[in-house]
Amino acid sequence: MRPSKRAASDLRPVRFERAVSRHAEGSCLVRFGDTEVMCTASLEDRVPGWLRGGGKGWVTAEYGMLPRSTTERMRREASAGKPSGRTQEIQRLIGRSLRAVVDMHKLGERQITIDCDVLQADGGTRTASITGAWVALHDCVRWMQARDMVSEDPLIDHVAAVSCGVYGGETVLDLDYLEDSDAETDANFVMTGSGNLVEVQASAEGEPFTQDQLIEMLDLARAGIGQLVDLQKMTIG
Amino acid sequence: MRPSKRAASDLRPVRFERAVSRHAEGSCLVRFGDTEVMCTASLEDRVPGWLRGGGKGWVTAEYGMLPRSTTERMRREASAGKPSGRTQEIQRLIGRSLRAVVDMHKLGERQITIDCDVLQADGGTRTASITGAWVALHDCVRWMQARDMVSEDPLIDHVAAVSCGVYGGETVLDLDYLEDSDAETDANFVMTGSGNLVEVQASAEGEPFTQDQLIEMLDLARAGIGQLVDLQKMTIG
Amino acid sequence: MRPSKRAASDLRPVRFERAVSRHAEGSCLVRFGDTEVMCTASLEDRVPGWLRGGGKGWVTAEYGMLPRSTTERMRREASAGKPSGRTQEIQRLIGRSLRAVVDMHKLGERQITIDCDVLQADGGTRTASITGAWVALHDCVRWMQARDMVSEDPLIDHVAAVSCGVYGGETVLDLDYLEDSDAETDANFVMTGSGNLVEVQASAEGEPFTQDQLIEMLDLARAGIGQLVDLQKMTIG
Amino acid sequence: MRPSKRAASDLRPVRFERAVSRHAEGSCLVRFGDTEVMCTASLEDRVPGWLRGGGKGWVTAEYGMLPRSTTERMRREASAGKPSGRTQEIQRLIGRSLRAVVDMHKLGERQITIDCDVLQADGGTRTASITGAWVALHDCVRWMQARDMVSEDPLIDHVAAVSCGVYGGETVLDLDYLEDSDAETDANFVMTGSGNLVEVQASAEGEPFTQDQLIEMLDLARAGIGQLVDLQKMTIG
Amino acid sequence: MRPSKRAASDLRPVRFERAVSRHAEGSCLVRFGDTEVMCTASLEDRVPGWLRGGGKGWVTAEYGMLPRSTTERMRREASAGKPSGRTQEIQRLIGRSLRAVVDMHKLGERQITIDCDVLQADGGTRTASITGAWVALHDCVRWMQARDMVSEDPLIDHVAAVSCGVYGGETVLDLDYLEDSDAETDANFVMTGSGNLVEVQASAEGEPFTQDQLIEMLDLARAGIGQLVDLQKMTIG
Amino acid sequence: MRPSKRAASDLRPVRFERAVSRHAEGSCLVRFGDTEVMCTASLEDRVPGWLRGGGKGWVTAEYGMLPRSTTERMRREASAGKPSGRTQEIQRLIGRSLRAVVDMHKLGERQITIDCDVLQADGGTRTASITGAWVALHDCVRWMQARDMVSEDPLIDHVAAVSCGVYGGETVLDLDYLEDSDAETDANFVMTGSGNLVEVQASAEGEPFTQDQLIEMLDLARAGIGQLVDLQKMTIG
Repeated sequence: MRPSKRAASDLRPVRFERAVSRHAEGSCLVRFGDTEVMCTASLEDRVPGWLRGGGKGWVTAEYGMLPRSTTERMRREASAGKPSGRTQEIQRLIGRSLRAVVDMHKLGERQITIDCDVLQADGGTRTASITGAWVALHDCVRWMQARDMVSEDPLIDHVAAVSCGVYGGETVLDLDYLEDSDAETDANFVMTGSGNLVEVQASAEGEPFTQDQLIEMLDLARAGIGQLVDLQKMTIG
Repeated sequence: MRPSKRAASDLRPVRFERAVSRHAEGSCLVRFGDTEVMCTASLEDRVPGWLRGGGKGWVTAEYGMLPRSTTERMRREASAGKPSGRTQEIQRLIGRSLRAVVDMHKLGERQITIDCDVLQADGGTRTASITGAWVALHDCVRWMQARDMVSEDPLIDHVAAVSCGVYGGETVLDLDYLEDSDAETDANFVMTGSGNLVEVQASAEGEPFTQDQLIEMLDLARAGIGQLVDLQKMTIG
Repeated sequence: MRPSKRAASDLRPVRFERAVSRHAEGSCLVRFGDTEVMCTASLEDRVPGWLRGGGKGWVTAEYGMLPRSTTERMRREASAGKPSGRTQEIQRLIGRSLRAVVDMHKLGERQITIDCDVLQADGGTRTASITGAWVALHDCVRWMQARDMVSEDPLIDHVAAVSCGVYGGETVLDLDYLEDSDAETDANFVMTGSGNLVEVQASAEGEPFTQDQLIEMLDLARAGIGQLVDLQKMTIG
Repeated sequence: MRPSKRAASDLRPVRFERAVSRHAEGSCLVRFGDTEVMCTASLEDRVPGWLRGGGKGWVTAEYGMLPRSTTERMRREASAGKPSGRTQEIQRLIGRSLRAVVDMHKLGERQITIDCDVLQADGGTRTASITGAWVALHDCVRWMQARDMVSEDPLIDHVAAVSCGVYGGETVLDLDYLEDSDAETDANFVMTGSGNLVEVQASAEGEPFTQDQLIEMLDLARAGIGQLVDLQKMTIG
Repeated sequence: MRPSKRAASDLRPVRFERAVSRHAEGSCLVRFGDTEVMCTASLEDRVPGWLRGGGKGWVTAEYGMLPRSTTERMRREASAGKPSGRTQEIQRLIGRSLRAVVDMHKLGERQITIDCDVLQADGGTRTASITGAWVALHDCVRWMQARDMVSEDPLIDHVAAVSCGVYGGETVLDLDYLEDSDAETDANFVMTGSGNLVEVQASAEGEPFTQDQLIEMLDLARAGIGQLVDLQKMTIG
Repeated sequence: MRPSKRAASDLRPVRFERAVSRHAEGSCLVRFGDTEVMCTASLEDRVPGWLRGGGKGWVTAEYGMLPRSTTERMRREASAGKPSGRTQEIQRLIGRSLRAVVDMHKLGERQITIDCDVLQADGGTRTASITGAWVALHDCVRWMQARDMVSEDPLIDHVAAVSCGVYGGETVLDLDYLEDSDAETDANFVMTGSGNLVEVQASAEGEPFTQDQLIEMLDLARAGIGQLVDLQKMTIG
């Protein structure tokens, strides 16, 4: 039995709140249970140096946690002098995931930066970030379309993410912090709306895992991501 | 006429939302118009090295802005390698303001860290931070009292803050971003519930200002801070 | 009675020594009692990026303390990895104070950097810095005029600064280190030669202060700054 | 056809050279084709703070590349001021992989640090690092056993790693740099000698990939890692 | 008697291995006894800013040590946040030494960066670096000549280096780590193939040394460097 | 003919001013011509970690330049984020030079830190620093003796330093900035009062130099340092 009483294949309650920022071109406050992430999309008329002059755009992401988003207060990253390895790993994952569903030529020579700031953490902050970031990105693209900045829609597909784990010997979906702390294996899956894989990351925290367990987790993730994409569709509806 | 159409002595609408964080011992989301700051109080059972063994506690503050809390996206401070001078100046101001109304002996050898994170900025983030931080601090102290951690109330008084400025030659209260950008003089006042001054900071951005203008701003601030303290009282009611 | 035996409204002995640097375009060694600050003005034919092409100049300041300028040796800032928050706060104050009396259009597209390096500290290093920096700035402007680099004098007025405090319940002028350490309230005032205010900073270190005490300090500061401006005039005479 | 002319399921020539360092307790120079990594194991009689007093040991890893290990010279990380996100990600992967096959209780309160320094890079540096690091770790454990420092063997199993990818639409094993640069999907697999999974990381660089492709890559990796473990066994034979 | 049993004027066995890097334009693995340094030369078609447009080239060097190149594992410099003072001192010494034998006009507006990475340290890493770096530089220049990139040979002369010391009261050549740790005086000499001096650095670690001892060390160094240059000639033969 | 019109063996006018700091245990403002360095000695009752409990003391040095001590304003090191390689090299040289004339056992478990801050630079700042630092160190030791903190004098001998160079083909003593910029070879010599060598550093900036030139410079330096030691004796006399 999971601490959260959920069935193995249950997502936590998921909610999206759009247009939560007065300044950003697109924004979304996403909640996966008690995990809350503020996602904003910022549009700029310039691209990184290595892309300049090629007519292609870029989508990148940054990630942060408020110091008391966690059970124990963490040190503020600005005081630590640099983003931690974990932070850099997550922001590169979010960026790769979003770029998989954007046509950079149609975007034109512009950059969209997605900021994912965790207001409250209860496990799954990176998967909530990717899933909410897609909504902010979508709204930013609509903002551009409303201003005739792009002639064709650069957004190819949905993208969403969910975690799975081996907990108490059983494969389960969408771990909260309590489950995550005790899981033997921790995995994150990123998929498109059409069901293809963008990223698979599975790590044994304790015992190595079997290929069968990996397949089971893939199946759980596929179902969960299907529901997340449906929720994204209702949100932007 | 102010861009915000307010009278010279009008505050923006001010709202406090308590208990917005599941993890923090006290928390408050404060809004001064479109300025939104998340304030959390984190209690720790240790004090800075130079206080150890003296039986006294400490209250300190940290301040940050989400990258897209501003009109143009700012660089994330964790990427910049260190908190900017402005950030450090503000967090020391918040800390000093709160310490002015706490009896450190009654707090005992513990530290309360107040994090003020700006979710959306529209001028006056430091004054909103101080005013909201007091509510988070208050709730943290009540949390401690509920657990019999302190025998006497360490909270001596309210503290609140507001900005004033010379705008179009006239002294006005609680500047928003648009007014702040054009003000000739920018001032911040911090006062206790009993009406004494904790901090006065007034800076000529363009023309120097007169002593009469300083007195006028003091009078505006006194009235505004009185209203903020009344709102704090209703909030903790 | 003040530890320094001075009356409440007495400045310490103030001295200016000009042309103390062989290399700088203007320089001044200023002493407020035992506080000694070396001020140099460095002229450059370029302005910060955001001013380029606008025909306007810029004045900025940097501040430092020699490691053993203080009673106990301090850590060298170059070893600490970055200027402290206090250092940044002071250098921005000096810069703002000087810019209040310079016409940036008349200066032309050039930058003057004022370095204020504390050789010996005994309280009031920031106010001595501002007061001495004006002399270095003045001499730099004269150096430019002697070379026909400016057609009209960009220096509009004098600027000088002094500290005040509430010490033993009484308001006093120009605190030395011993007084400063024990003062309940610490304030710094920056005024122009014509008596207008450029900056007011007053902080309660212990007890909050009253509006009457603030007015008393303002009156003390006005008289003290008047004397400092007279001394500046005699120096450049 | 692969640029390297290899069949889809072919490893590059793999060689291990033991005892290449005079100072280290264990060391191995590993080559996967033209990729060369120097792995050293350093034993210390202390563990990280959070493990102290618990009787358990720790295994950690650091990773670096010589500036000219790559086609174009890279900036030296010591000059860059901090290890890059990629470096941190890799060193955490190596550490996790090794810890999966060590019994920390049997190791006792000691730390083994594995340094993996890339002398020459031609793709697959992280998988070569893990595979060679196991040999250095093994020799360090034997060094301890020879000195009666452990009563039972803390090394539970072999661990090895290999990359796979989708290249020209086909799944292939052990990509070199040329193949890696053009692959649509890039994956790394870490498995134990008994065939269980420690880590799966698969990323779409261009097109998302299907579940079938993931399974095919898993099968290739399983066969390749089997061969690598056989080579490890012959090396330590 | 020296711990290494060598006569006072004996070098350790010296070996050069060329073309050890697949990517670099020139490379050399040099061994002075158990000291091993990998030297690579990297050619770039740009020079530092202050040289641009002058038609002259530049030669610079960087130096590093693998963490376990030493008896006790050292902290990785990338983690330490910056190259140490010792590292900077050594890389400037290597750069100056090589530039003394290169005609920058004949090199043309290009930069050659020599990386010297210590794989194993047993004293004399800086002198081995200079001596091996010359071979890598030589091979890089030949690489350029083979591609008709220079019309005249920019390499003017050989350069090599050796350490000397006062050990047990006696002057000795080419100290290993054991001798170096106990030497009263430690000196490094850099000379050209024609016998002129490029650099002399002699430091008393304990007792000051006499002018006679300096002359004796100079004579030992002259003979040793003569042998090193002969070995360089045989290597490039 | 030298730009300074001095004969080859002439020092610049040298002056020492003692007790220039109110706070330091010893201090000296030293001038070598237009080069001015403020040297302070700071006594602390603790030693670096690796010396603790051994009954021995330590002498260390730090060095800095005021930003406008030079012809062109330099960047402030505190802003640059770390002391430059040159700064670190100089402060280690000053420290080694002073330690050569101090008996660490007689000093007891205390540390003396010498700060050398260049107020004005005109060549030879490191040699002026060493020579002036000895006076500050001497006065610090006398301060300790006056308080019966040491039973025997820990100061064994004088130490002083001077530069030499090959300028226009001729060896000359004590180069000023103009000479230093054009010298083919630049050398620094540190000697004790009894005429032994503590440090020799000679670098070819252009043409390599001969052994004869090195000997000539040694002879010039010996005579110059003799005069500097005489001046130190008169100063403390």
